Amino acid sequence: MSASPPEAARERGSYPKGVARRQEILDRALEVFAKRGAQRTSLRAIAQEVGVTHAALTHYFGSLEELLVAVYRESELRADAEGPPPAPDVSPAEQMRISAADNREIPGLVQLYSTLVATALEDGHSAAQEFATQRFARVREDLAQRVRHLQSMGRLREDVEPGLVAALVVAASDGLQTQWLLDPAVDHEAALAMLDRLLSSPRTDS
Amino acid sequence: MSASPPEAARERGSYPKGVARRQEILDRALEVFAKRGAQRTSLRAIAQEVGVTHAALTHYFGSLEELLVAVYRESELRADAEGPPPAPDVSPAEQMRISAADNREIPGLVQLYSTLVATALEDGHSAAQEFATQRFARVREDLAQRVRHLQSMGRLREDVEPGLVAALVVAASDGLQTQWLLDPAVDHEAALAMLDRLLSSPRTDS
Repeated sequence: MSASPPEAARERGSYPKGVARRQEILDRALEVFAKRGAQRTSLRAIAQEVGVTHAALTHYFGSLEELLVAVYRESELRADAEGPPPAPDVSPAEQMRISAADNREIPGLVQLYSTLVATALEDGHSAAQEFATQRFARVREDLAQRVRHLQSMGRLREDVEPGLVAALVVAASDGLQTQWLLDPAVDHEAALAMLDRLLSSPRTDS
Repeated sequence: MSASPPEAARERGSYPKGVARRQEILDRALEVFAKRGAQRTSLRAIAQEVGVTHAALTHYFGSLEELLVAVYRESELRADAEGPPPAPDVSPAEQMRISAADNREIPGLVQLYSTLVATALEDGHSAAQEFATQRFARVREDLAQRVRHLQSMGRLREDVEPGLVAALVVAASDGLQTQWLLDPAVDHEAALAMLDRLLSSPRTDS
């Protein structure tokens, strides 16, 4: 390794030791958020809960917003590592229903997600905005591909545009989860199942 | 008027003069938010933008959260006063499409809405939670009634549960609006129109 690393690398700890330390803090922060949710607080208060100094958090993550984005990305990486993605013939709404069921285990991260998305809509929050915009685009692209596959199998209506279906399913899933969190009487799984049924090919024998 | 009003009445200004002053501040706050959105800030900063003292804002609204709720409720009251509600045979998704189009005129209030909903999901924010929970319940009930009416007219599929349709349409509308705000390429009006088509009665002549 160079004896004189670039300033940026030194600052954000891309030395092996710095990377390990950043990951260690991120792991602890993820535990804290999974339990407590994203209730608005200061970077200083979070540092205390995580058990590191305020200076360390600022050093490794920059701002509260960047820390929140890093924690959520980490939770996604872990979820991806836990198992293969759903088979390509699982319908988009069914896929959302499965992930909504998984989310029930991690209410703190669901709160964090909604906080990040709301923050992204406010002006001047480029980290949250970039995260949310890219995440929506990626999820929609994956779902649209799934829709095209299911259409080619004759299992999903042919008269709907895959990109619009993808946006609709993501929106329905996010919005139903919000309503369910506020009022458990809202049956978001049943509503997603209904959307699935509306999108499925009309049966030829009916 | 009594010479000795109850403490609570005195505190929140339910004297005609206090009521008028509160309304005056609310009107100005609504103007400010319609322009600036709900970007996180302090009650003190908002007081400055509105042109009142921090003490006055605290006196009339209590906290930042309560002020945000009051501003959003005021914006809804004004929207209601602007014209009659859509005719009962306007479909739920079409109704959401109309209000989404109206919302394009007031991006600041749309931001405020998403901020209030995200705040409601965090612990310890009872004003936002009560507001969001009640608002979702009211909008769902209105839409469910619309669904039953359209079903009785034979214009909406009979094999869907009105309450689930209502929750789905509200969710789709909120979620699509969020995606569109982050990425204008998302055609939320077209996605709502597609949902409308999926929910409409299969035409007997097709």
